[in-house]
Amino acid sequence: MGKTIAEKIFDAHLRDKPSPDNMVLNLDAVLCHEITTPIAIMDLVEKGMDQVFDNTKIKAVIDHVTPAKDSKTALQGKIMRDWAKRHAIKDFFDIGANGVCHALFPEKGFIRPGYTVIMGDSHTCTHGAFGAFAAGVGTTDLEVGIYKGVCSFRTPKSLKIELSGELQHGVTAKDVILAVIKRLTVNGGTDKIIEFVGPVIDAFNMAERMTLCNMAIEAGATCGICLPDLVTAEYLWEFIKDDYSDIAAAVADFSKWHSDSDALYVEEIKIDVSPLTPQVTFDFKPDQVKDITDMAGTKVDQIYIGSCTNGRIEDLRAAASILKGRTLATGVRGIVTPATPKIYSMALEEGIIKIFMDAGFCVLNPTCGACLGMSSGVLAEGEVCASTTNRNFNGRMGKGGMVHLMSPYSATVGAVTGTITDPRQFL
Amino acid sequence: MGKTIAEKIFDAHLRDKPSPDNMVLNLDAVLCHEITTPIAIMDLVEKGMDQVFDNTKIKAVIDHVTPAKDSKTALQGKIMRDWAKRHAIKDFFDIGANGVCHALFPEKGFIRPGYTVIMGDSHTCTHGAFGAFAAGVGTTDLEVGIYKGVCSFRTPKSLKIELSGELQHGVTAKDVILAVIKRLTVNGGTDKIIEFVGPVIDAFNMAERMTLCNMAIEAGATCGICLPDLVTAEYLWEFIKDDYSDIAAAVADFSKWHSDSDALYVEEIKIDVSPLTPQVTFDFKPDQVKDITDMAGTKVDQIYIGSCTNGRIEDLRAAASILKGRTLATGVRGIVTPATPKIYSMALEEGIIKIFMDAGFCVLNPTCGACLGMSSGVLAEGEVCASTTNRNFNGRMGKGGMVHLMSPYSATVGAVTGTITDPRQFL
Repeated sequence: MGKTIAEKIFDAHLRDKPSPDNMVLNLDAVLCHEITTPIAIMDLVEKGMDQVFDNTKIKAVIDHVTPAKDSKTALQGKIMRDWAKRHAIKDFFDIGANGVCHALFPEKGFIRPGYTVIMGDSHTCTHGAFGAFAAGVGTTDLEVGIYKGVCSFRTPKSLKIELSGELQHGVTAKDVILAVIKRLTVNGGTDKIIEFVGPVIDAFNMAERMTLCNMAIEAGATCGICLPDLVTAEYLWEFIKDDYSDIAAAVADFSKWHSDSDALYVEEIKIDVSPLTPQVTFDFKPDQVKDITDMAGTKVDQIYIGSCTNGRIEDLRAAASILKGRTLATGVRGIVTPATPKIYSMALEEGIIKIFMDAGFCVLNPTCGACLGMSSGVLAEGEVCASTTNRNFNGRMGKGGMVHLMSPYSATVGAVTGTITDPRQFL
Repeated sequence: MGKTIAEKIFDAHLRDKPSPDNMVLNLDAVLCHEITTPIAIMDLVEKGMDQVFDNTKIKAVIDHVTPAKDSKTALQGKIMRDWAKRHAIKDFFDIGANGVCHALFPEKGFIRPGYTVIMGDSHTCTHGAFGAFAAGVGTTDLEVGIYKGVCSFRTPKSLKIELSGELQHGVTAKDVILAVIKRLTVNGGTDKIIEFVGPVIDAFNMAERMTLCNMAIEAGATCGICLPDLVTAEYLWEFIKDDYSDIAAAVADFSKWHSDSDALYVEEIKIDVSPLTPQVTFDFKPDQVKDITDMAGTKVDQIYIGSCTNGRIEDLRAAASILKGRTLATGVRGIVTPATPKIYSMALEEGIIKIFMDAGFCVLNPTCGACLGMSSGVLAEGEVCASTTNRNFNGRMGKGGMVHLMSPYSATVGAVTGTITDPRQFL
């Protein structure tokens, strides 16, 4: 019987199998940020176990509240900083070099096909875009991962989603994943790995694949995953070029992770994306999704463009293509945070930062910030935000605030009109 | 007997003189920000007195914590926003259009020679650079100012500081004011207006005059003030050109505010700035100032370039002149926040933002932020910051942190070397 990509990765990293339902895996990367990691660090210190399994496999960043907004977040940063220094963790990204973890780490080439990756962050599933198994874990698992380089998971069950057809102009990976979550519901992916396949995925660039995998968790899935191919190899080429004679060799090597044609899935879903229109969430669950036309006219107070879902250069370019020569609607606030310093620099170079500023946006340093209501754009009670982020939970961006998730195109058009508006008429 | 500029301004704005020691003045501008104003607004609302004396004379901004870092600051912003809308306050600057009040309001042409200005902010004295009387006030005074357009002050007593000589290259207005505060002590200016005169002031541009007046409060003074002249007129020309036949006419008109030669001062101090070297604070009071050479080698963790003291384009240019082609010292964090969107745009245009980013700085949106430990770069316990800001009080930039105040030149050199260093060797 054939195997899925997840099963192949699990088999290749198996350290122990305490029961048929559980597998303990060796980890290739333990990612760390300043909200969840300090708790693990302090607990290890307290136990007299202040060690790291491999300081080259730990990647750390301060990204959620940066620069620090108060003494508590300043201390979280300091704990990370001191720990990285103590253990000579070279890949630690402090203020100035830091960016949103799930954008920064791939950009640095830290995620490779076939990798096992954990982080104390729910959107770790983003890295599945590279054909890796990447999962968000709790603090105890993170602590064990840091100390021993292993983590226990349920034996993988995969759900295959095959996407075919052609996306209409103005309909994006974000709209696809919102539609997928609507179909699956917030529980539909629970304890499963969602494997995204089909011609739509083949045509997606890495940014689009990351947007897709990023929100797998919103359907309850442990990880979203794409099969690594030429697109993956091209993205990673600068980091892997010494390992392969040419890019074709890399692609051939990556294919060892492809699911076999006779692999077993718990479910297989086929979706034709051709009729898909721009999607937007309503209310407080990410599966509460409507066609944007059904929400048209809803007033917005703030626009937020950024996050691990849609803060990459491709997203900023999409926003800028609409924003150029336009300005924010009266009474509407615009916030943009390029997800990494590299993205910020590219946006600077391409004139995109200027377009945002000329339009009246507030341009922030790279940060997770307001996506999770921790800083840099928290909503007041009764305020409404059109956002490119990933969660619309009650109070997510500020107590009493409402968040409508949508694509960068849709959010930008909302900034210009002051209401939720179908972006296709602006393209 | 002749009069000082302060006496002339007081006389011209006198509404009432309840006692020889007190004068109630009509106000030309009531400036507002989101930390102190919402308290005044809510109190007026509660009393059923939700009115403003003149919505064209009230200028408001969200600048201290922006974008909002939590529900409390989000609410403060919302109170300002709703109030500005309710009273049709046209000059309200929200996220994206907002900047540090004492940089933004002068830039908009809101401050003119002879004006009376109040704000619920201690560094309101900055605006004395324009030959205005500008004072920070408490919430009750602010509330009366908003409602009635008047404020009561002590009958003015002026302290004249005459600055002569020529500044060495690398020695700046910031070094001058630190030296002045050292000489006066933190009480030396209490209940006085410091009038800065002499050839050094004549040669200063408006940015330098603002830096000087900004810190008058650190010597306890109610206001720092400079006599309005051609430099003032040139800065303001775009805003006043319809009021005068030519710039000479404006300068002639401004001279009505000049102190008479036989005016009476409570004290007159003459300082030759020629021997002055770069200055830096130690410990927790702004009069604890040393020559930078006496502090050389002190390790720093963070560099902060910004604030109403030194966040203007001239300051960023000074920093960039050193930073170009250099990078942050290992383990040192750099933060820069251009004080207004206009300054940010100019810095973008001039390649300064790129220089900061290439050097490894975190480039923030315009905000007061970390200067007062409210957001955007709060220090952890035991951390040391070389800062272009105005206060080194214990815990000012974060509980348990140490702040060394200095010029943009000195702070930038500290960023490059990782220690407090005389900037003159880098120029």
